[in-house]
Amino acid sequence: MYTPEYLRDFIIQIFEKIDCPTEDAQAIADVFIRAELRNLPSHGMIRIKDYFQLWKAGRINTRPNVKVVHETPGTAVIDADGAVGIVGATKSMILAIEKAKNSGTGWVATRNSNHLGIGSYYAMMALEHDMIGISMTNANPMVAPVNSVERMLGTNPITMAVPAGKQPAFVADFSTTPIARGKLAVASKKGEKVPLGYVQDKDGVPSDDPDIMKKGGSMLPLGGDLQHGSHKGYALGAVVDILTGVLSGANFGPFVPPFLAYLPMPEIEVGKGMGHFFGAMRIDGFMKAEEFKKRMDKWITTFRNSKPVKGKKVLIPGDIEREAEERIFKEGIKVLPGIQKDVKEVADKLGVEFELKD
Amino acid sequence: MYTPEYLRDFIIQIFEKIDCPTEDAQAIADVFIRAELRNLPSHGMIRIKDYFQLWKAGRINTRPNVKVVHETPGTAVIDADGAVGIVGATKSMILAIEKAKNSGTGWVATRNSNHLGIGSYYAMMALEHDMIGISMTNANPMVAPVNSVERMLGTNPITMAVPAGKQPAFVADFSTTPIARGKLAVASKKGEKVPLGYVQDKDGVPSDDPDIMKKGGSMLPLGGDLQHGSHKGYALGAVVDILTGVLSGANFGPFVPPFLAYLPMPEIEVGKGMGHFFGAMRIDGFMKAEEFKKRMDKWITTFRNSKPVKGKKVLIPGDIEREAEERIFKEGIKVLPGIQKDVKEVADKLGVEFELKD
Repeated sequence: MYTPEYLRDFIIQIFEKIDCPTEDAQAIADVFIRAELRNLPSHGMIRIKDYFQLWKAGRINTRPNVKVVHETPGTAVIDADGAVGIVGATKSMILAIEKAKNSGTGWVATRNSNHLGIGSYYAMMALEHDMIGISMTNANPMVAPVNSVERMLGTNPITMAVPAGKQPAFVADFSTTPIARGKLAVASKKGEKVPLGYVQDKDGVPSDDPDIMKKGGSMLPLGGDLQHGSHKGYALGAVVDILTGVLSGANFGPFVPPFLAYLPMPEIEVGKGMGHFFGAMRIDGFMKAEEFKKRMDKWITTFRNSKPVKGKKVLIPGDIEREAEERIFKEGIKVLPGIQKDVKEVADKLGVEFELKD
Repeated sequence: MYTPEYLRDFIIQIFEKIDCPTEDAQAIADVFIRAELRNLPSHGMIRIKDYFQLWKAGRINTRPNVKVVHETPGTAVIDADGAVGIVGATKSMILAIEKAKNSGTGWVATRNSNHLGIGSYYAMMALEHDMIGISMTNANPMVAPVNSVERMLGTNPITMAVPAGKQPAFVADFSTTPIARGKLAVASKKGEKVPLGYVQDKDGVPSDDPDIMKKGGSMLPLGGDLQHGSHKGYALGAVVDILTGVLSGANFGPFVPPFLAYLPMPEIEVGKGMGHFFGAMRIDGFMKAEEFKKRMDKWITTFRNSKPVKGKKVLIPGDIEREAEERIFKEGIKVLPGIQKDVKEVADKLGVEFELKD
């Protein structure tokens, strides 16, 4: 087990070693630690090696000039200059919140960026300002549109955080696919098949093979098949791609660059880097924040107390991650041995100390 | 077959007879006709009887004072005063567009409203202004949250319309459930079972019975089951309920009043009527509209030309409805005999002529 403080300090050192300004390294550490605490380790320590390799390959800019390239009182486009995704994303959300303070709502589309970690981090930044926060990102193509066999969309997650009063905030955070890609890797390692509705083979035939992506297959949109509304998952993923990619001037659809250094860059560029989209809406643009928070408390308790399936518990979006955060904050952060090994390798190369732990 | 002109004229007369101002009756007719042309008849002529019965039951206000009750330069809440949903929705979207003209984006939450017809109508109003249009509505409860057996959410549809250049606009319009409720009625009439993933019984056991809603069952969120991401469909439906219901001051969740006069009103009110949410975003708040439209053309042609499953065609959201609109506009609008009969009954009671047709 690691303490958050130990890992935070370590991550800051690592990113400073690859030439990030301290302020940027701190932002990166905060988002990685938050991912670990919220039990979303696929967006935490495991990314250190990915970012190190991208930096070595010259595909990440650790001294970026993140700048506003288009602006109105309530909207902006930010060019993240090829930064670590978290750097541009944090600055973009801060700007969206500033704009909302002055204009009621603020909307920032971000281009020339990279993987931003957990989207909930940014959406939740709005909460303390009595605002609703929204974040979206596109991602490298994995998902085939309905009736297509080509990988055209990323898992394209959407996050929305809504402040409440006595109840904890509502935090929806979900990809527009039935599963995250990591689930396929887990099933593959265990030698298990996956349920139909996750992936299809190179001809578009539904598949239960977790390794099908290596054989020309593709992931399916939320819904899984047309009968179960996968055209809706496709439309939702497309909406995210348009707001994050087309509107920002980033790459979109099949042109989004992969986050992994060993995957080649797409041959065609239709914009710059990956794209994100952030929004902040002042509650008091609609009603008094206190009144709204009481209404949210009522919403949350009503749903939480709805009649459960026998033996089950009805959850509010965000419950699982918040409960994990409370527990892991007390117990410490567990980093899997394989990830510790990768992290240690990077640390050794950069001359940073990293303690292996049980 | 009916011509759009004939039906439009007829609908205007009907709604004038139940005391709607001509302007409101025209707005209602426009949305109904658009639903018929886009081959979404569940939101067209069939609603005449529903609205007539709601009016007779005193549950609809045909002389509403639709008014702005809270306002900032970029946001507003509208109280629709119990109007036919279309009346308040049209005025709300006009206001969102006006606000976007001045502030870059415009956001209007609407309460005390009723069924608004097809959401795409409002989202598409933004297109001619070079804006992205958004519309959402809550609806009477049909859908159980994950792990719940209680009907807590409506099918809560989302629409987003995005302007393009030479290509037709992108128009995503989808409910946050695998199917619309109408599909269950169709299967029931045919004596067919439905696939698992649409509905569950009163104990939360997946069911293939299309009549299960009459036996205490509930619809399932998009995803169908937890393994296929129904927690994401639940989160998405919840997001819509919060923006449309909680933020507007309308009823939300299980408290949303039913649209059908024979269903009793909920015992508890947590706000006024049904809720909607509308948004308009000026493209040039982010980049020049001409540049964006070229990028959208590229997005659309890239997706349309992605490699199809053999014998299939890859579609862009909005294709099916637009193609239907072109075809039905030429061929005429077909109204099913059962619906003609219902409409004729209403027409006779109100002293309006209505011709039955093959």
